[in-house]
Amino acid sequence: MTRGTHDTPGAAGSAASAGAPDSIAGSGFHAMWRDLHGIGRHPRTGGYRRYAWSAADADCRAWFRQEAAARGLAYEVDRNGNQWAWLGDPAQGDAVVTGSHLDSVPDGGAFDGPLGVVSAFAALDELRSRGARPGRPLAVVNFGDEEGARFGLACVGSRLTAGQLRPEQARELRDAGGVSLPQAMEAAGHDPDAIGPDPERLAGIGAFVELHIEQGRALDLGGGPVGVASAIWPHGRWRFDFGGQANHAGTTRLEDRRDPMLTYATTVLAARKKARLAGALATFGKVQVEPNGVNAIASLVRGWLDSRAADEETLATVVAAIEQAACERGARDGVDVTVTRESFTPVVEFAHELRDTLAALVSPDAPVPVLPTGAGHDAGILSAAVPTAMLFVRNPTGVSHSPAESAAEDDCVAGVTALADVLEGLACR
Amino acid sequence: MTRGTHDTPGAAGSAASAGAPDSIAGSGFHAMWRDLHGIGRHPRTGGYRRYAWSAADADCRAWFRQEAAARGLAYEVDRNGNQWAWLGDPAQGDAVVTGSHLDSVPDGGAFDGPLGVVSAFAALDELRSRGARPGRPLAVVNFGDEEGARFGLACVGSRLTAGQLRPEQARELRDAGGVSLPQAMEAAGHDPDAIGPDPERLAGIGAFVELHIEQGRALDLGGGPVGVASAIWPHGRWRFDFGGQANHAGTTRLEDRRDPMLTYATTVLAARKKARLAGALATFGKVQVEPNGVNAIASLVRGWLDSRAADEETLATVVAAIEQAACERGARDGVDVTVTRESFTPVVEFAHELRDTLAALVSPDAPVPVLPTGAGHDAGILSAAVPTAMLFVRNPTGVSHSPAESAAEDDCVAGVTALADVLEGLACR
Repeated sequence: MTRGTHDTPGAAGSAASAGAPDSIAGSGFHAMWRDLHGIGRHPRTGGYRRYAWSAADADCRAWFRQEAAARGLAYEVDRNGNQWAWLGDPAQGDAVVTGSHLDSVPDGGAFDGPLGVVSAFAALDELRSRGARPGRPLAVVNFGDEEGARFGLACVGSRLTAGQLRPEQARELRDAGGVSLPQAMEAAGHDPDAIGPDPERLAGIGAFVELHIEQGRALDLGGGPVGVASAIWPHGRWRFDFGGQANHAGTTRLEDRRDPMLTYATTVLAARKKARLAGALATFGKVQVEPNGVNAIASLVRGWLDSRAADEETLATVVAAIEQAACERGARDGVDVTVTRESFTPVVEFAHELRDTLAALVSPDAPVPVLPTGAGHDAGILSAAVPTAMLFVRNPTGVSHSPAESAAEDDCVAGVTALADVLEGLACR
Repeated sequence: MTRGTHDTPGAAGSAASAGAPDSIAGSGFHAMWRDLHGIGRHPRTGGYRRYAWSAADADCRAWFRQEAAARGLAYEVDRNGNQWAWLGDPAQGDAVVTGSHLDSVPDGGAFDGPLGVVSAFAALDELRSRGARPGRPLAVVNFGDEEGARFGLACVGSRLTAGQLRPEQARELRDAGGVSLPQAMEAAGHDPDAIGPDPERLAGIGAFVELHIEQGRALDLGGGPVGVASAIWPHGRWRFDFGGQANHAGTTRLEDRRDPMLTYATTVLAARKKARLAGALATFGKVQVEPNGVNAIASLVRGWLDSRAADEETLATVVAAIEQAACERGARDGVDVTVTRESFTPVVEFAHELRDTLAALVSPDAPVPVLPTGAGHDAGILSAAVPTAMLFVRNPTGVSHSPAESAAEDDCVAGVTALADVLEGLACR
């Protein structure tokens, strides 16, 4: 398949603004991107700010409901706020579910999340145009609060459903403005008293397939337009608190300072080095400073480490090495270093049988790329309870979590075709 | 003079809660600290948040007015919002003025500013108890918005008065919430249309003496309770914009990143090193990050450099070296570095004759410490137009711009005595 132009919905209005084959998804594919284009898009950055239970999120959810209605699918919201659109009777069991999420990181791109939901609806359209007759119930799902941008914890909707987040823990979550998750749910019209595990729902699912834009360049570096996931790297978040002493930047002798910014800076550089040596990833992307005044030595610098590796032992080694570098420099600087693990997700190996089935359905005649990813997904959460697989669509720059995230129209169409092949193969034979 | 306990008004309620000699200022000294204690004090940090034209600032200003009234001093507010309390007729000219400021940095200490205003009133009380009869008009002044914590520019009140800040520039200043300086003035009952240079007022001043807590440890390291200022180091603020590319922290290969946090970290460490080698000061105490998400590589890190040195050539050399280190690392990281000088204050040499007069009045029989400072002051602004001098009171820890700022009660009393000696010597002989 040839590569089309890199057409970003976030920048140009549509992933497939013209020229998508009529055989794929028809005009519905373009219309879905067009309708999503303006929702929660920041006029200055061009990035999306679709935070869980916000006004932009409500618009996305209204869009989902309309798409379900337009196709005559049975719409429901589960106890945790995840949206479902059913073709066939879920009570029949052994359902094949596909979908992703519609929320975003701050100034996220157009594809991370929505590509999986749009492609799911488009794949159903494609099945219909092929005249395929599903023998199992099919559903499109939109999991709530996947990115965790507002309340600090990712995959809240799927975690609650899978029993990996207790309701009382979820009720303690607060956003930067102090609004609790229950308050935000209630304001958006969802009953926060209803949240909790949903084992019956999961028991009715025979397979969950999440299509997602690749957040890296493995497919671009020679793989092809579509790949199948092998595993999700173990990953976690660690908060580093560097406590020093506020003082006047213009008068305090260097030798009298306890400046936590120096310790932080050393730790940032150590993280990069330790990750590079171990073939892992380590990033400081968020920092808070007190009092954060130009002429005041900081009293507190708080930095968050995101780290991931192919296996848990490597990850633990990298994080320990970063912590050691922080503490050694902290001792020199007179700065107290406290490290708190805020979240940790073990390695996820996707179901091998389903993975192999997907690979054969997507590309019967040639091997399809099978690749790991460092990113967490609802599919990773659900994999503990349900046979789960993922399809990745090529990302020509690898850029993600950014307004510059892009995908070629042809590749998006190839993703829809692959997903339709998978649904047909799983549910219609 | 012996050293008393380190009693912080910010922590314990009064700089001189008990035991101040009755011969100095009497109970009025204690009462002034007691009345100021709770104004704008943050309950969690114990630090002061007295920002220009805020409610806390209004309370400080009401306190000033009451202190003036209690002493029968003529009260006035000048066109730029600075408060004056006059003993004698200012129209006589050749006035001796003393005072400082009452506003604070975020979570500032109790003494930076207020010590100069409280000591000024206490020194007038002391003159009265000595039966001294001033032959020149005397005034206590509270300059508005010295710290610049709210609108980002220090010494706004004195700069406007001295013609070093044009009214149209001042009217463009905005706080973090978007409120303009004129709006803030108007809300606080001051006419923003009135602001501008005030040369007649300055022409009527024969000497300005500002007493301030030392913001360093020179006096503590062997100098004595009170010193006289020689000069203010040249100093400035430079904004460093590090522009990279937002991306997913969990999936982007290290070699594909353009992570500005790395460039920032290198620059922070370079600043410390270059300053140390040059005997200067360089600090990054304020930073802003976009998008500031845990799992997002930053697209932009903005850090502010505060740097100071004994002479302008050294300062320029240090800043250039820091900028070079930033650009070299930026080239490696694929990060664009832009440096903007936001403010610069040349070296201030205080009037030598007045300085020598002060030294002789404070300590007729022994040499008094004469020391430079890295901190800007209203006295530095006024020195271009008026003979100006400063007295410093010992700071046992050197800590400033922090709730931990402290001064011994005996040293505060020594400061009042020294200031009274100066006022008597200048105005009453």
